[in-house]
Amino acid sequence: MAANESVTEPRRLTPKGRATRERIVATAAELMHDHGVAGTSLGDVQKAAGVGVSQVYHYFGDKDSLIRAVVAHRIEALLATLGGLDSMEGLRAWRDLLVNTLGQRNCEGGCPVGSLAGELAESFPECRVDLAGGFDQWETAIRAGLQAMYDRGELRRKANPDRLATALLAAVEGGMLLAQVRRDPAPLATALDEVLDRIEDLRPRRAGASVSQATETSR
Amino acid sequence: MAANESVTEPRRLTPKGRATRERIVATAAELMHDHGVAGTSLGDVQKAAGVGVSQVYHYFGDKDSLIRAVVAHRIEALLATLGGLDSMEGLRAWRDLLVNTLGQRNCEGGCPVGSLAGELAESFPECRVDLAGGFDQWETAIRAGLQAMYDRGELRRKANPDRLATALLAAVEGGMLLAQVRRDPAPLATALDEVLDRIEDLRPRRAGASVSQATETSR
Repeated sequence: MAANESVTEPRRLTPKGRATRERIVATAAELMHDHGVAGTSLGDVQKAAGVGVSQVYHYFGDKDSLIRAVVAHRIEALLATLGGLDSMEGLRAWRDLLVNTLGQRNCEGGCPVGSLAGELAESFPECRVDLAGGFDQWETAIRAGLQAMYDRGELRRKANPDRLATALLAAVEGGMLLAQVRRDPAPLATALDEVLDRIEDLRPRRAGASVSQATETSR
Repeated sequence: MAANESVTEPRRLTPKGRATRERIVATAAELMHDHGVAGTSLGDVQKAAGVGVSQVYHYFGDKDSLIRAVVAHRIEALLATLGGLDSMEGLRAWRDLLVNTLGQRNCEGGCPVGSLAGELAESFPECRVDLAGGFDQWETAIRAGLQAMYDRGELRRKANPDRLATALLAAVEGGMLLAQVRRDPAPLATALDEVLDRIEDLRPRRAGASVSQATETSR
């Protein structure tokens, strides 16, 4: 992701300069989340961040550069929330975090990264590539957790960590979109639970025999 | 969906008037899919549809009305593709249709309804409600197919058609978004296959014993 690195920190900055730049990006990210990218002007960002017009231009040059910095910022923040995805407990805790975080904002804005993709994928090709790179990193982190479970024998041989990681990420994005339009986190919870239940069903029978498996009948 | 009905046909039109109105909506839908709603002006629509400016204003009054008509048009078109979702064969055929249709356009634009949701959910509250209604109808159609399978005993008692329908719809939307940013239909195919495999695994053992179940070992 050389493209993202270049927009994350375009040149050496003093600590104060870096803080100002970060404040501008974080403010722009919030405004774009609430009002859309098209509905957010550089003037809006400048006022909300409490900086001068010249500072916004000094750090970003134009709105496109600021948009790409927001994309990089959102991806970085998202990747920082990942970790411990190598057990059912860790996966369920991550599911709870996603559902609760979305619910706390009344599902407004949906997924911070997915919403940017929805708005920018066709109109801004460089951003589409940045976002694809972000989703790749996200999927890689999910896959690594599932692969670790697989390697420790906690998933049966028929389980495919690559495919399950894609399915989980799609459940996050699709569930977030449905939750956003409905203003209800339930679709996200359900979409994730169904994929997580599938993963749980793929645990070895000897160790993972759950109550549902034990009581399963032929109907 | 009274809101949608009111924008689908606001008043009685002659057959010629209806055809003109439909051409304007279909043209606007294509332009908004390719360039985004924000990137499509009434002038663009008027030129591409080959109609006069006064006709666009005659049928729609303003851009917001046209946008809502596009949303209704996309939802109607989508619902017309549903049917036969009450068997594994029907579900797999629907999966193939979605994947092939997206692949034929190089995944550009993603889901015609989901993309509108991504761009309009926060900036246009009436459209968010219209889109939520459209997703509800879509999910209801999927659920009806799964419920019919359940009622015929083709799914075990532990299967939950409501939850599986939500998971399938989320897989469509999340898979479409990942496919769109990656310009590759594979994530959509994988996301759908994982949920469909889960549904297949929920068939009664006696009737639905598939090869994968028969050869399943305790690892």
